[in-house]
Amino acid sequence: MTRTAFFISDGTGITAESLGRSLLAQFESVEIRMLTKPYIDSLEKARTLVAIIEATAVRDGEQPIIIDTVVDEQIRAVIREAPGFKVDIFSTFLKPLEEELEAHSSYSVGRTHAIGRDDVYMDRIHSVHFALDNDDGARTHQYDQADIILVGVSRCGKTPTSLYLALQFGIRAANYPLTEDDLDEDGSLKLPKVLAQHRHKLFGLTIDPRRLAAIRHERRPNSRYSSMDQCVQEVEQAEGLYRQLHVPYIDTTRFSVEEISTRMIAETGLTRRFSPR
Amino acid sequence: MTRTAFFISDGTGITAESLGRSLLAQFESVEIRMLTKPYIDSLEKARTLVAIIEATAVRDGEQPIIIDTVVDEQIRAVIREAPGFKVDIFSTFLKPLEEELEAHSSYSVGRTHAIGRDDVYMDRIHSVHFALDNDDGARTHQYDQADIILVGVSRCGKTPTSLYLALQFGIRAANYPLTEDDLDEDGSLKLPKVLAQHRHKLFGLTIDPRRLAAIRHERRPNSRYSSMDQCVQEVEQAEGLYRQLHVPYIDTTRFSVEEISTRMIAETGLTRRFSPR
Repeated sequence: MTRTAFFISDGTGITAESLGRSLLAQFESVEIRMLTKPYIDSLEKARTLVAIIEATAVRDGEQPIIIDTVVDEQIRAVIREAPGFKVDIFSTFLKPLEEELEAHSSYSVGRTHAIGRDDVYMDRIHSVHFALDNDDGARTHQYDQADIILVGVSRCGKTPTSLYLALQFGIRAANYPLTEDDLDEDGSLKLPKVLAQHRHKLFGLTIDPRRLAAIRHERRPNSRYSSMDQCVQEVEQAEGLYRQLHVPYIDTTRFSVEEISTRMIAETGLTRRFSPR
Repeated sequence: MTRTAFFISDGTGITAESLGRSLLAQFESVEIRMLTKPYIDSLEKARTLVAIIEATAVRDGEQPIIIDTVVDEQIRAVIREAPGFKVDIFSTFLKPLEEELEAHSSYSVGRTHAIGRDDVYMDRIHSVHFALDNDDGARTHQYDQADIILVGVSRCGKTPTSLYLALQFGIRAANYPLTEDDLDEDGSLKLPKVLAQHRHKLFGLTIDPRRLAAIRHERRPNSRYSSMDQCVQEVEQAEGLYRQLHVPYIDTTRFSVEEISTRMIAETGLTRRFSPR
């Protein structure tokens, strides 16, 4: 018997869904169908949703789990009429917070999304374009503006991480590939000149050669580029360089883009231009 | 008197911070310094953090607000020793959920991040590269693989939105610019041939011409490109095309990238390849 969980939000639903999934991920043995319902920002939409929840309860034969981050009291009151096990963040914590802070709450939807805050919007767009303009070492004259310069072998995750840092935190991230062009006579990697000038901004990415080979195989199957020998060699050379020059680095193999980015920020003390939304 | 709020997580801290900010955003009159503490995934780190919280309480002269999404019971128990107003998601809801679902919870950290789930990782990387490869109409032969094709005038937000759709949801988003090259004899826009073949995948973006002019001014100041006349004309032509061809569209002016993306998904019923993390 499958149960249904509704993640209800008056906004994008991203936080409600994240939170809901975190909570329900603790119950591996229970099969739960998860539905995100964003933009429930009017009483009419709330009533329509309640009807859907009621129908779901009948079909499942069990009340659904309802996790919501809706701010507006009236909309929450409508949702409360639906049959279900309620995990209501605001109802649970808002009044206690009002008492603690000795202040009234504002009940305004989407306040954290900084709607209309030009500076935040422009900054993210600017950061995304910075990441794209400075992707893969094509351009190197803007490194003065970079907050961080990611380095690593081809396909270890530099581009997605740079873009995520830009989109999520407004961080200006450039990235530069470490390749065989930068080998010394003794076969070890040396730091390209343009990177040497910005040594303090460097952050390395490394990866398990097996994962690297798999990723490269998708791009160029059965090539020297994607062979295990080549991947092992490149990864060892890159890591050798990081250790030699004391460049901080992260092994991206088992991490999501969020984890790589937030660990990088935690380690370097990089200031984010703004908060997650 | 400033109070401090700690957003504590055993993972990236993104959900804890989002949730914390949503809750505290309701108290505009109270000045709250917000600190995110990610990766509190060991007892030692928890104890170190408790010391920091205690010192903060002394300095502020008020107990901090502590919002945490830590899964592990032992770590939560340590954090509970800190002086503060606790908003503890798991402690509040996990046991009631266990009773409701008649199952025990697994207490495993980072479960929702799909650590090591190769398919998800590869998919996001693939989607990001798809978005980059199919950015700005440079390449048009991969549109069969696209889930959605964003269209709109230059600088209305197509690239950041495509990248966000890729990173957050694994959606294959291409984008194509509407320009003066596509004008008909009568001065109205006509749909480029390559887009006409994929009409059902099109989604339009529009924007307030004043915002557009401001954005373009950053890129090319004092040019025809960034003049109000040009921006008004382009926007009106694009919107005319959307209405004529019944292409769904969103005004991006007051929306964040999250809002544009999730509204797009809600409107088209696009299937996301995976969930937010």
